[in-house]
Amino acid sequence: MLRRTFPRASAALKGLPLDGTTINSNVKSAKYAVRGNVLERSMELQRRMAAGEKLPFDKIVPCNIGNPHACMQLPLSFHREVLSLCISPSLASDHPNAFKRDVVERAKSYTSGLGGGVGAYTNSQGIPAVREEIAAFIAERDGHPARADRIYLTNGASEGVRILLTCLLRSGGKHDGLLTPIPQYPLYSASLALLGGTLVPYHLNEKANWGVEMANLRESLKTARGNGVEVRGIAVINPGNPTGNILAEEQIKDIIQMGVDEKMVVLADEVYQANIWKKGASFSSFKKVACDMGYSGEDGDERLQLVSFHSTSKGYFGECGLRGGYMEVHGIGAEVRAELYKLSSLSLCSNTVGQLAAGLMINPPKKGDPSFETFEQERDGILSSLKRRSIMVHKALNELEGITCNEADGALYAFPRIRLSKKASNTAEGKGVPADEYYCLQMLDESGIVLVPGSGFGQEEGTLHFRTTFLPAEETMHDTLKRFAKAHKKFMDEHRD
Amino acid sequence: MLRRTFPRASAALKGLPLDGTTINSNVKSAKYAVRGNVLERSMELQRRMAAGEKLPFDKIVPCNIGNPHACMQLPLSFHREVLSLCISPSLASDHPNAFKRDVVERAKSYTSGLGGGVGAYTNSQGIPAVREEIAAFIAERDGHPARADRIYLTNGASEGVRILLTCLLRSGGKHDGLLTPIPQYPLYSASLALLGGTLVPYHLNEKANWGVEMANLRESLKTARGNGVEVRGIAVINPGNPTGNILAEEQIKDIIQMGVDEKMVVLADEVYQANIWKKGASFSSFKKVACDMGYSGEDGDERLQLVSFHSTSKGYFGECGLRGGYMEVHGIGAEVRAELYKLSSLSLCSNTVGQLAAGLMINPPKKGDPSFETFEQERDGILSSLKRRSIMVHKALNELEGITCNEADGALYAFPRIRLSKKASNTAEGKGVPADEYYCLQMLDESGIVLVPGSGFGQEEGTLHFRTTFLPAEETMHDTLKRFAKAHKKFMDEHRD
Repeated sequence: MLRRTFPRASAALKGLPLDGTTINSNVKSAKYAVRGNVLERSMELQRRMAAGEKLPFDKIVPCNIGNPHACMQLPLSFHREVLSLCISPSLASDHPNAFKRDVVERAKSYTSGLGGGVGAYTNSQGIPAVREEIAAFIAERDGHPARADRIYLTNGASEGVRILLTCLLRSGGKHDGLLTPIPQYPLYSASLALLGGTLVPYHLNEKANWGVEMANLRESLKTARGNGVEVRGIAVINPGNPTGNILAEEQIKDIIQMGVDEKMVVLADEVYQANIWKKGASFSSFKKVACDMGYSGEDGDERLQLVSFHSTSKGYFGECGLRGGYMEVHGIGAEVRAELYKLSSLSLCSNTVGQLAAGLMINPPKKGDPSFETFEQERDGILSSLKRRSIMVHKALNELEGITCNEADGALYAFPRIRLSKKASNTAEGKGVPADEYYCLQMLDESGIVLVPGSGFGQEEGTLHFRTTFLPAEETMHDTLKRFAKAHKKFMDEHRD
Repeated sequence: MLRRTFPRASAALKGLPLDGTTINSNVKSAKYAVRGNVLERSMELQRRMAAGEKLPFDKIVPCNIGNPHACMQLPLSFHREVLSLCISPSLASDHPNAFKRDVVERAKSYTSGLGGGVGAYTNSQGIPAVREEIAAFIAERDGHPARADRIYLTNGASEGVRILLTCLLRSGGKHDGLLTPIPQYPLYSASLALLGGTLVPYHLNEKANWGVEMANLRESLKTARGNGVEVRGIAVINPGNPTGNILAEEQIKDIIQMGVDEKMVVLADEVYQANIWKKGASFSSFKKVACDMGYSGEDGDERLQLVSFHSTSKGYFGECGLRGGYMEVHGIGAEVRAELYKLSSLSLCSNTVGQLAAGLMINPPKKGDPSFETFEQERDGILSSLKRRSIMVHKALNELEGITCNEADGALYAFPRIRLSKKASNTAEGKGVPADEYYCLQMLDESGIVLVPGSGFGQEEGTLHFRTTFLPAEETMHDTLKRFAKAHKKFMDEHRD
């Protein structure tokens, strides 16, 4: 308890203990557009439709968020069956012919390692057997060793980012900052606001397919330092969200070297690593490139400090609701690892079903396993359909007046630039909303399609964008794009200067 | 970004970007004893046993944490079957005779409301149908209305506490405080440390069965205010953890009135509401008493601001690993509710299986349902066994030299006081650990039983305690207590002055 006397804050005397004037101001300043005003409006429209109101469309199409199962993507059979058996192990003995051999075996191997089954708290860092599975996956993916004790299982990737940033950003002052791409996934900006940190923007180059430019990055760092910001780390999203760019190994190398030289932790958000669409492109992890460069990350080699994040929510798995994910730390010493463990232990452990889902995601059936053929069909079906849908969406967008859109080399989104008329901008200003949000709200009201304004991700001043997923079911995509085009044309016609 | 210049902190120049000197100091100062040194040591012993080393015992008995399934408590059949069907809905159609009618119906009603099944993100506040179920449960329990839009589903109760405290404690200064019982569940002390808030202790009276004393509470508040702390809320754990006390309605009334008069948010941690052991005692929720007193909590009546927490982890359900829970807000206005929603949305949503588990917990089969009899047997079997075990443990502890222990009226723990010799205290001091931790470590090495030192919860100066669950399986309890008594005697004999 503090000893020095301090006058009671006047806000608390005037206001309620918890109201808009007395709430932690960092909470108020955090913004999360993916679930912001446009989504709120869509929920209202949904309620009005349910109450019988006639609207210009018959359903809401949620393109605001990468939520594949909500767009009719089916779960993988093997993965779900194993989870069912982990939850009710007696199903396998009661119905001996109901499950394939490898399903039963995997469920048994998980539950036998769990002690109290899925109903018990696990090690706060995550189930050891699952962390071993993940380490084996990483080692095979990268061709470099990985260790289970460097892996932390989390409720989705978001929790990992929260825990890591909580350690990195020192409280009490806005002087700790994070280099963050613009546009970015707003988890970063919101977490920074919440933790009282400073977002240090580095702009991706839209003209160069949203590539990272080192000169740009260095300039941002220099400016921030000049302004007194202690730049503690650099966040990279690869493949990019919302931009869909894929970093080449050379670029990754440059970023890693900058992290080493400038003493910054590198945060590699790699949740879209299984969503690669560009012909001939492949995913290289930051961890792989770091090891190639000789940064072993072993205790004693903390020259490069790297944390990478993965999630069960994306890829071809799309298990958003299960909230599975992990982070791997590299070059982070034992003392900080213990603090990460302690922070995880404060919420006891991440949910067990999500933990097992993370294991299943990176260790699917292998050739020769009874479930392999079905798995392969399901996986390839999802990936090839996503690729086709990506092409359809980008093609359709680029055909519209005032819209240009880079191809998505990876991830699940298109992030087109829109050029709006003065009339549209003025109308938006009159309504007190940013022009891109106004556009998205109008598009929603007309078509039922939920987009996210570019301002939620950040965009170069003077430009406007929006993000859309390309997740609507393939059989509905043609119709969705027609509705989109019609609503867009109406908007443009109604707002001509 | 800040504009004023500011010298780079020297720590970052000397240390690594993320090491013990540059990590957020609030993280370092947070302690969470339930998963602290004693547990670490038990994990080491477990590894050594697995490697073949002979120890004075043949298994580790985890009494450090309320983790019933890890102690062989079986899950409830109905609840788990419904969850299995929600994860793999085709099981019901593929095996039409495998599941009882009410299991199939419940699973169908959940999945039909989910849209994308358990694999899709839900509303960030939680699945509407589950929130409706919870509101109906609360209304029936309390005899007062409850509203689904005041309920937030969370990953266990811990996440709810984190979100609420994040809103309540204003950052940038240690002047915001929370009245916290001593002893307390260390989630509160750790969260306060993490958020830079001040723990304002109020001592429960061990001699009066760990009751809350209003004079004590008022004195603590006055002292804290005198020291310049803005006391923003009061946390109450009822039934108590680690103390097992149950608050009478009169006491709850007094605390509520104090919250109103002193403009403090009341945080009611009610996760043990289904664990009531004292004959004739019953659980009264803060919400019920508040409504009885006329604090409706409706918009416009924010005189009392109350947030209550519940979890799937305790009661007779014990589903810790699923990480289900909720908080209900009362007298919290729309602006703050929107901020709570935004904070929830930053992690998208809590895990869907845990959300459904919360619904199942408070809406089990009813008389006449096909699954009712089995459910009733399972529930009553668990509760009556827990009650017997509570009595066994308390009786055994009170028979030991130097130990006195209040009965647990509720919850899952005994929190005995131990009186140690000077020799024991001096030995501990020589080893640089608190005396209660030394005792727990010695007990672990001798018996394999994992306890938590009282210092992890807070205790009156000059007193020593430890917390133990009474969760070990009933058939092993006799043996566990014998081992405990033997190890305790050895400790006492070896440390006589």
